[in-house]
Amino acid sequence: MNRERKAPDVVIRRLPLYLRALELIDHNESPIISSEQMAQIIGTSAGQVRKDLSYFGVFGKQGVGYQTLALRDELRRILKLDREIRVGLIGVGNLGEALVRYHQKSPVHRPLQIVALFDTDPKKIGRKIAEVEVFPLEDLEKRIAEFKIKLMILTFPAVNVQEVVDLCVKNGVKAFLNFIPASIKVPFGVKLHTSDVTLELQSLAYYT
Amino acid sequence: MNRERKAPDVVIRRLPLYLRALELIDHNESPIISSEQMAQIIGTSAGQVRKDLSYFGVFGKQGVGYQTLALRDELRRILKLDREIRVGLIGVGNLGEALVRYHQKSPVHRPLQIVALFDTDPKKIGRKIAEVEVFPLEDLEKRIAEFKIKLMILTFPAVNVQEVVDLCVKNGVKAFLNFIPASIKVPFGVKLHTSDVTLELQSLAYYT
Repeated sequence: MNRERKAPDVVIRRLPLYLRALELIDHNESPIISSEQMAQIIGTSAGQVRKDLSYFGVFGKQGVGYQTLALRDELRRILKLDREIRVGLIGVGNLGEALVRYHQKSPVHRPLQIVALFDTDPKKIGRKIAEVEVFPLEDLEKRIAEFKIKLMILTFPAVNVQEVVDLCVKNGVKAFLNFIPASIKVPFGVKLHTSDVTLELQSLAYYT
Repeated sequence: MNRERKAPDVVIRRLPLYLRALELIDHNESPIISSEQMAQIIGTSAGQVRKDLSYFGVFGKQGVGYQTLALRDELRRILKLDREIRVGLIGVGNLGEALVRYHQKSPVHRPLQIVALFDTDPKKIGRKIAEVEVFPLEDLEKRIAEFKIKLMILTFPAVNVQEVVDLCVKNGVKAFLNFIPASIKVPFGVKLHTSDVTLELQSLAYYT
C-alpha cells in the first residue's frame, strides 16, 4: 500500500460514498463489482473511481472489477473505520442535539462514537442526549484526555471559537466538523471541515 | 459576461465563500482586494481565486486586484442572490427545526427566504417555527406553486423520498439541499446537494 502519494481532500470525501455502496451490497450475491457499477451507484465516472482508488494502491482486475468484500475492508482500513474513533461535540443547542440523536440512532455510525458533549449552560450540564452526557465546557481539556477524543463537532454560538479550537488541538483533537459560521484556523496536520447550511443554500441558488 | 463556459460545481461552491469575505469588508476602507488577500481569507491560492472568477468573465486589474463593491455585486448576481429565492423544508424534526431557526436568525440569509414547512404529523401542522408555518405534506404541490418555491430542504425520514422529490420537481423546484441518507435521482437541469454528517465524519476519520 503506497500511502505516500497524498490523496486530495476531494478524493478522501468520496471514499465514504464508495464504502457506503459496498456496505449495502450482498457480498455473496455480488462478490465482484466493476468500476462502472461503483460509478453508477455514487454518480461519478468509472475513470474517477479507478483513479480515486489508485491513490491507495487499490487496483481492480482489468475487465473484471474489484472484490467487494476485500474492497470494503480496505476502505474501512484507509478511513481508519476499522477501529473506534471517539467523537466529542461542543454546543448542545437545537442543531447539536439533532446531530447527536441522528448519529447515535444508526448502527452504520458504529466506529464513530460520540462519547461526550460540552456546553456552558448549567441547565444542560449533567443531562444526557441519546445516552451521551453533557459536561461543562471548563472540563474540556480534562475530558478530551479522559475520553481520548480525536474528532470534535462544533455547534456552539460563534464566540471564542478560536480559543476553544486551540484548546482542543493542544489536547490531541485531530479533526473538526464545524457548523459555526466563523473563520477558524488549525495548524498543519489538523483537519477542519466546515458544513455551512447558508453557504450550501447560497451555492444552490445558482441553479434555481 | 460569458455564462456559457460552464463552471464546475466545486467552483460554484466556492463563490459564496468569496461573497462572504466581501460582505465582511468595509468597502470604504478597502475599495480594492487582491486575489492573494481573497485567497488568504478563504484558505485557497491566488491562482484558484483568479481561475474561479474568470469562469464568469470577472477579471481583476493586474497588479492591483478587484474592486470590492463591484465584485460583491457581481457575485450576488451570478449566484442569483440579488433577488429573493423562496425556500421550503420538508420534515420538521429536530434537524429541520434547528435549520429553520438557525437560518431565519441571521440577516445575511435574507435573499433566501424559508417560506413554508411541511410535515405529516398532525400535531405539527399549523405550528410556526421562527414564524414559518408548517403545512400538511399532502398540500405540497399546491403550496409549492402558491409560494413559488424553487429550493427545497429535505430533512424527513427516508421513506418515499424519491416520490416526494419527483412531486417537487414536477412543480418547479430547481434545487435540493438534502440531509436524508438515501439515494435520490433528479432530472438534468435540477441540482441536488447532499449534506450527510455521517459521510463528513467518516471522511474526517481519515485524518485522526
